[in-house]
Amino acid sequence: MVKCPDRKGVIAALAQLLYGLGCNILASDQFTAEEGVYFQRIRFDLTDMVVGTANKAVLERAIAEVADRFGMEWRLFYDGAVKRVAILVSRLDHCLYDILIRHRAGELKCEIPIIISNHPDLEGIATSFGIPFKHLPVAPGSGPEGKRSQIEALLEELGVDLIVLARYMQIFSEEFCSRNAMRTINIHHSFLPAFEGAKPYHRAYERGVKVIGATAHYATSELDAGPIIEQDVTRISHRDSVQDMIRKGRDLERLVLARALRSVLSDSVMVNGNRTVVFEI
Amino acid sequence: MVKCPDRKGVIAALAQLLYGLGCNILASDQFTAEEGVYFQRIRFDLTDMVVGTANKAVLERAIAEVADRFGMEWRLFYDGAVKRVAILVSRLDHCLYDILIRHRAGELKCEIPIIISNHPDLEGIATSFGIPFKHLPVAPGSGPEGKRSQIEALLEELGVDLIVLARYMQIFSEEFCSRNAMRTINIHHSFLPAFEGAKPYHRAYERGVKVIGATAHYATSELDAGPIIEQDVTRISHRDSVQDMIRKGRDLERLVLARALRSVLSDSVMVNGNRTVVFEI
Amino acid sequence: MVKCPDRKGVIAALAQLLYGLGCNILASDQFTAEEGVYFQRIRFDLTDMVVGTANKAVLERAIAEVADRFGMEWRLFYDGAVKRVAILVSRLDHCLYDILIRHRAGELKCEIPIIISNHPDLEGIATSFGIPFKHLPVAPGSGPEGKRSQIEALLEELGVDLIVLARYMQIFSEEFCSRNAMRTINIHHSFLPAFEGAKPYHRAYERGVKVIGATAHYATSELDAGPIIEQDVTRISHRDSVQDMIRKGRDLERLVLARALRSVLSDSVMVNGNRTVVFEI
Amino acid sequence: MVKCPDRKGVIAALAQLLYGLGCNILASDQFTAEEGVYFQRIRFDLTDMVVGTANKAVLERAIAEVADRFGMEWRLFYDGAVKRVAILVSRLDHCLYDILIRHRAGELKCEIPIIISNHPDLEGIATSFGIPFKHLPVAPGSGPEGKRSQIEALLEELGVDLIVLARYMQIFSEEFCSRNAMRTINIHHSFLPAFEGAKPYHRAYERGVKVIGATAHYATSELDAGPIIEQDVTRISHRDSVQDMIRKGRDLERLVLARALRSVLSDSVMVNGNRTVVFEI
Repeated sequence: MVKCPDRKGVIAALAQLLYGLGCNILASDQFTAEEGVYFQRIRFDLTDMVVGTANKAVLERAIAEVADRFGMEWRLFYDGAVKRVAILVSRLDHCLYDILIRHRAGELKCEIPIIISNHPDLEGIATSFGIPFKHLPVAPGSGPEGKRSQIEALLEELGVDLIVLARYMQIFSEEFCSRNAMRTINIHHSFLPAFEGAKPYHRAYERGVKVIGATAHYATSELDAGPIIEQDVTRISHRDSVQDMIRKGRDLERLVLARALRSVLSDSVMVNGNRTVVFEI
Repeated sequence: MVKCPDRKGVIAALAQLLYGLGCNILASDQFTAEEGVYFQRIRFDLTDMVVGTANKAVLERAIAEVADRFGMEWRLFYDGAVKRVAILVSRLDHCLYDILIRHRAGELKCEIPIIISNHPDLEGIATSFGIPFKHLPVAPGSGPEGKRSQIEALLEELGVDLIVLARYMQIFSEEFCSRNAMRTINIHHSFLPAFEGAKPYHRAYERGVKVIGATAHYATSELDAGPIIEQDVTRISHRDSVQDMIRKGRDLERLVLARALRSVLSDSVMVNGNRTVVFEI
Repeated sequence: MVKCPDRKGVIAALAQLLYGLGCNILASDQFTAEEGVYFQRIRFDLTDMVVGTANKAVLERAIAEVADRFGMEWRLFYDGAVKRVAILVSRLDHCLYDILIRHRAGELKCEIPIIISNHPDLEGIATSFGIPFKHLPVAPGSGPEGKRSQIEALLEELGVDLIVLARYMQIFSEEFCSRNAMRTINIHHSFLPAFEGAKPYHRAYERGVKVIGATAHYATSELDAGPIIEQDVTRISHRDSVQDMIRKGRDLERLVLARALRSVLSDSVMVNGNRTVVFEI
Repeated sequence: MVKCPDRKGVIAALAQLLYGLGCNILASDQFTAEEGVYFQRIRFDLTDMVVGTANKAVLERAIAEVADRFGMEWRLFYDGAVKRVAILVSRLDHCLYDILIRHRAGELKCEIPIIISNHPDLEGIATSFGIPFKHLPVAPGSGPEGKRSQIEALLEELGVDLIVLARYMQIFSEEFCSRNAMRTINIHHSFLPAFEGAKPYHRAYERGVKVIGATAHYATSELDAGPIIEQDVTRISHRDSVQDMIRKGRDLERLVLARALRSVLSDSVMVNGNRTVVFEI
């Protein structure tokens, strides 16, 4: 994936580079934001790379040269390199179950070395899927910051690439958020920016909306204001109580989080200021 | 339609009353809000009414008696009584066209005695559908309050029952709103309560949402905060510019406004605090 | 729930009957089909029933009398009477998991005394939810009819009220279907009547459709032609391979089956010829 | 737009060619079908073309050379070249109105030199939008083939590029279809392949489906079996009569037809056997 100022010749330079090295471009998508920033995602096959697949250094050096010429930020992901994902949960199990079932079904290309919770309730689910579970309680009033060293130490120790807050009911400190920026995904149970903060279904009920929603976004230090990766909604009527919304919302939350996670795991998401570019290839 | 505290025997009393008078109940829907308020909508046929269809007074007196017994608010709508609707527009024509086409197709059971605008642009459309058009310009800075007497006088003169703000770009005074409460429908181009106020598509673009929406609601003195009648959304992606959102939003706006208007015209909407009960029969 | 020819006074008679016995009507919905058949669903509270809650016989006799008068079919469901549901599966686990998770979360008011499969693969899932699992293999070429006595004997022994075919990949005999008519729910992975029969996603791919769907229906002896309870679709594009459709379809299948099951368990579904009336209360 | 067997170096060759000529690639999308066919759509800017914008011949010769090398089919569309669209209608006006309103709003980049109908009913609408209207009645039993010479002569005379059947209720001959293959778009009022042929809403009602749909497709000699460009559906319930479906379907039909037409007019649709590739850029 590359990101650079929009200039002529970028596509040609990258395509020529890959062709010259014997790489076959499998898919390519690009997007030029209104601000003149150019984003591109290219998937290519190294099998026939003339310099040998072992020689990734040559490839990376060649890309670095082009990148330098065009003022390009770039990241290269190898297909074999599976991301390591930590799931943080509290007491609600629907998002956790959903991720684990999809993972087992092969929908989510990642490893899950740990499930962390501030409550012990969901340990049985972790166990039934053979995933280690760590209970790190949060002292009342302290916030999980108190657990920072513990959580972050654990994540570091396990080599975690991505943190998924699957209905984790604690707010992280600004420091945690900035240290883990753009690698922490949260699911919020409203169609943000409506009903930011706590108890969105209760507030949706009070406002009398006719749709409810869910939003997967990168967690940032400003609560519920990070770049949105995916959103969806479902219709409700006057007959739906808050409890009905919570029930219907569970389906939304898990679908939206799963779609966002799948996009992030396939390296299809780039951040453009406070917006995201989500490639579909 | 009736509204009263939830008490035993309401349904039986009404059903018995209608049966006793020889009225055939065609459809009935009811809803008890959590606050213990009971709403019911009954459609019935007077054809075989024992006292004769001319004798509506008997029917109304009988209902009034039951209503009195149960502390019931009630409204009786006769099928022949077609509502008179004034449409207020500014320069955008998509909602106006949509209403007029549906009206001509027989989807909207109403009369449209007048289209009022603060601009002369859409007169041609009104004319092609044979509807009178009145241009009432608003002096800059004055707001349409300056036109209050003119607009309200016109509405009164024409016996207007319902006011539809079909992308009318002026804010009414508190006095206008309270005088016309629950008979003025507005279409807002966002999924309220997100992006209340002006330029919602621009703000949706800046926030980077993945869905945009539209909301039809009763206009109240608090801007964009009245009871919501209908909402819907459509998906967008990072590729959609503000202009694309405006284009996609036009389809949403007209569909949502049309559905809300249809519900209101069929007397299916009741207000419950700041929420609505929208019966589907 | 009642079903009878549409005649004046039905509503009044039932409402009066319940009122007279001291029952409070909690919700009521009705529908008159074009063929002149009247359907009604009434939920009422027996707590204050004048003859005492123990005396259900009085209630049932009273209803039977009214029913007789109006040529009415009727069924009475008591809230405490929880349905017993058998789930039949083959090798795919997503619908099974979904039902079990919703059941545990309290979304599905039923007991699940048995999971039956023609393969042993999913026994582990059954066990982790504490549900008995029975492996009843089907000899190749024989069809499950060979297992009829076994399956049906088991269902009878366990007092099963409802059979859910949660991606059970065997076709039942006509005799099984007619013996279990309107108590067997199947999930089909297309928007029926498109792509009836086998491999619908492959055929959807070949036809080049832009939406795929799922359908929950009562199983009848005519394959995939029984009354439809619930359907939904999702968009796809030219980029979606058959494998992508299968993946996206899993979400559809489980959502559609869950909604249908929930409606059936709450006694909200009535059959009207080959169509269903699905009440929303 | 190009279509060729999938081979290494295609992207690089095209990108290099355009870069060499000074053209700036604005957007590019590609897709490799499972059958090994490669599709690409590139939008580029000629403004800075080194050989001068007048010299399109150089560009086309250069593309032809690359195309020859890769066995590529290609089409080049110039932004200024606006397509000429003929609309064929019968008596229903909703799709016609919709296209004309969108056209006037600038949503559809095309010219509409003629509206042709086998009935005179919609002439007034054509006139109010300033579009010529031609009434070409079809003798009962003859089919529009009898009008072939007239319709096709008219289309040829007017230099029509694209034919839109906006609820045109006549079936064309095989000869007409093959002569106008992939330039005739039809809107069918069901989610094909369900309910091919006549009266789909009636048959949807009889089958008791819970969704209805609409499909825009290229018309081919096999009725309702041509490549699908766009589809969508809407939910219905047991309460919806055939008339309700027809009403709700009108909204679907016009939205689906408009989206398909917009894609075709922006040269985003390529045909891959009986499927379509619809690029989103």
